[in-house]
Amino acid sequence: MERRRLDESEIAIRLESALGWRVIDGKLSKAYEFGDYASGVLFASSVAYQADRMDHHPDIAIGYRKVSLAVNTHDVGGISPFDFELARIADLVFEGSF
Amino acid sequence: MERRRLDESEIAIRLESALGWRVIDGKLSKAYEFGDYASGVLFASSVAYQADRMDHHPDIAIGYRKVSLAVNTHDVGGISPFDFELARIADLVFEGSF
Repeated sequence: MERRRLDESEIAIRLESALGWRVIDGKLSKAYEFGDYASGVLFASSVAYQADRMDHHPDIAIGYRKVSLAVNTHDVGGISPFDFELARIADLVFEGSF
Repeated sequence: MERRRLDESEIAIRLESALGWRVIDGKLSKAYEFGDYASGVLFASSVAYQADRMDHHPDIAIGYRKVSLAVNTHDVGGISPFDFELARIADLVFEGSF
């Protein structure tokens, strides 16, 4: 997976097919909601497992029935295709299709 | 466990015996560090389990080899003894003595 810095127009194009994702404080971010607290924690753990395998670790914020992810690529000082790949995988985990 | 709002002097006294805990943005908060990412995620999951049993849910932020907790008591609009109880339990989980 490419680790190059995407420019704003490239990010905008990719965001069109990344439902619910947006850029907040320079990080590709999304908040997911859950019916109960434990489901959110399990989701967070599942994303963390995949992230660790990718060696690409998002910030994960666990709130009450809500989990937020935020990721960028330190090496390139911005958002890279690798971040969008993590976003795609997180969505698959959420949908239960990973 | 009491759900009453502690005043500043009561909080100060309790903080003396709550190593590493401090008040940030009105929440009782602490950051824990780990040797690897997975350990932090397991810690977060373990704290979440205890928190859910207590029905008292902290904000949990998982970063790279670092997990931060922040908690207050919504019902009382501040920090209560219940928050310090959660802090104590999180420390026990961290030490592996829960």
